Amino acid sequence: MEERTEISSLGEFGLIDFLTKNFEIQNVSTIESIGDDCAVIDHYGKQTVITTDLLLEGVHFDLMYTPLKHLGYKSIIVNLSDVYAMKAIPTQVTLSLGISNKFSVEALTEFYEGVYAACQRYNVDLVGGDTSMSQKGFVISVTAIGEVAPDKFVKRNTAQKGDLICLSGEVGGAFLGLTLLEREKRIYLENPKIQPDLEGEDYIVGRILKPEARRDIIDFFDKNEITPTAMMDVSDGVSSEVMHICKDSNVGCRIYEDKLPINEKAREAAMKFALDPTVCALDGGEDYELLFTLKQEDYEKITLNEEISVIGYITEIEEGCKLISRGGNLHDIKPQGWNAFNY
Amino acid sequence: MEERTEISSLGEFGLIDFLTKNFEIQNVSTIESIGDDCAVIDHYGKQTVITTDLLLEGVHFDLMYTPLKHLGYKSIIVNLSDVYAMKAIPTQVTLSLGISNKFSVEALTEFYEGVYAACQRYNVDLVGGDTSMSQKGFVISVTAIGEVAPDKFVKRNTAQKGDLICLSGEVGGAFLGLTLLEREKRIYLENPKIQPDLEGEDYIVGRILKPEARRDIIDFFDKNEITPTAMMDVSDGVSSEVMHICKDSNVGCRIYEDKLPINEKAREAAMKFALDPTVCALDGGEDYELLFTLKQEDYEKITLNEEISVIGYITEIEEGCKLISRGGNLHDIKPQGWNAFNY
Repeated sequence: MEERTEISSLGEFGLIDFLTKNFEIQNVSTIESIGDDCAVIDHYGKQTVITTDLLLEGVHFDLMYTPLKHLGYKSIIVNLSDVYAMKAIPTQVTLSLGISNKFSVEALTEFYEGVYAACQRYNVDLVGGDTSMSQKGFVISVTAIGEVAPDKFVKRNTAQKGDLICLSGEVGGAFLGLTLLEREKRIYLENPKIQPDLEGEDYIVGRILKPEARRDIIDFFDKNEITPTAMMDVSDGVSSEVMHICKDSNVGCRIYEDKLPINEKAREAAMKFALDPTVCALDGGEDYELLFTLKQEDYEKITLNEEISVIGYITEIEEGCKLISRGGNLHDIKPQGWNAFNY
Repeated sequence: MEERTEISSLGEFGLIDFLTKNFEIQNVSTIESIGDDCAVIDHYGKQTVITTDLLLEGVHFDLMYTPLKHLGYKSIIVNLSDVYAMKAIPTQVTLSLGISNKFSVEALTEFYEGVYAACQRYNVDLVGGDTSMSQKGFVISVTAIGEVAPDKFVKRNTAQKGDLICLSGEVGGAFLGLTLLEREKRIYLENPKIQPDLEGEDYIVGRILKPEARRDIIDFFDKNEITPTAMMDVSDGVSSEVMHICKDSNVGCRIYEDKLPINEKAREAAMKFALDPTVCALDGGEDYELLFTLKQEDYEKITLNEEISVIGYITEIEEGCKLISRGGNLHDIKPQGWNAFNY
């Protein structure tokens, strides 16, 4: 029989001690960590960036097909991704949880294993949080802190006419993974005897359940002295983020359909679901890739990196935001907007 | 008829713009605020403190008797209180909300008015956040950032034998206010024709619905060059926090029942509810006062401040944590523990 320890048997502080005892501090800037009213962070001669994300059960994740360890990992990643999107280096995170009593200590331990794995991999310290009872659903709130040399951060509203629009990695896979998991869930709910069929779908399932943040791209920028003119991470979808950069920067854009980096596995999955891979890539979201703009003279530098695709360019605002289809036709790019309120 | 604007009519970014457009930046350390992946904060030559709190509907607040403006105010205050409890000065906050569609834009505007009022009063900047749909209940997550001169922060685990134990303001009132509001709610639910009777109860109701953070005490410390040996804010209750300081500092304590600062209005309310005012003061929680320890030689300095009471002293760990009753008897102080999981 699987072990089950009731959370109430540990008490709040006992629980926090139990869950966080293996965290070792990785950053010299972490002066004080978990265990007081606040953590203390030293950022002499650096600027601090801060970002926060809320993940709610039934809105942002479904525990029916999300392993808790993956969920813990992803909760950290989505925040680190925002820090990298400023061209900053994440250093600390705080984690607040609202947990229902259906959770056991073992379940929470699994969640923290994921948190721990992400913190280890990205060299960040978990420095505090708040744990409380939730009547309804699992609530996860993460805040990430990062540091950057003075005024070296990259914003969204600074793209300029003529800049190249670039994207790291591949897009669309996370949305297709989610589509698959939702389909398998429906089938299972209709007939619990049918086991989920995820064979050969590791790529798209991995994209939705265990995304990574693109630290490697920021390291590449640093090594090659590249400074994007504007940058964002892709959480709501490429079209939504492109529109965001364009609106905030007061510019327009052209995106080439045939330049969108889509993995072959994602294309196959799209076919299977009778979905347009381009739409999945543009509107899918949750890929946590970096979307950035670059001065044309830096083009040579990025050709060194196969993980970066040039997908279009920035225009005057009057030219609007358009997709150039494979056939050469122009289509308006429409922001999917407010995804958090849609799924 | 009252105006009601659907949140979906604005879209996520429209909503955030609408709600935050009146926030003016108050701290020079706020380099970049709302509107990008992260906020950017400059803390040259200072240390940064960070704290976070999660407030969940049905667990931490009841919308039946909590005006949204007060809730917005309190959400900020409970975090600033943690920053002051480090002897640091709060400078920025982030705010994440999970909102159900039963909320209108007008309701959220009221909530933000409270957030805004607290930020104004305590000179902090709202620098970011995350807004998403919630299927069940209103979810509020606040993270506060503060600054402190290098290594001048005050921790919990540094109290020493012989130190005085001090408390700002008064305790027990918030718990009695909550008790009253819960009673009136029950009466109302049983018979909606009976209107709540809060006459003459402004003090205790104010204590639970609109607490303040004790910036004045930190200012007083600074002006009079007082450094507490240990400090915490009182959120879970005096006995819980005293035990926390003692356990973390490896010491014991004596608390005098007759020194506990209890307002006359709170005593009257306790009588009415047939509750022991001492128990309300020790175990009540949510008073957001500062509990701190002080070297005896600093005693003269604090007598200047009528808002500070000396309630006991620190002993060797072997002597345990005891309450000295009015009659001179010793009683064990028991931590109420894990309050967040109890109410």
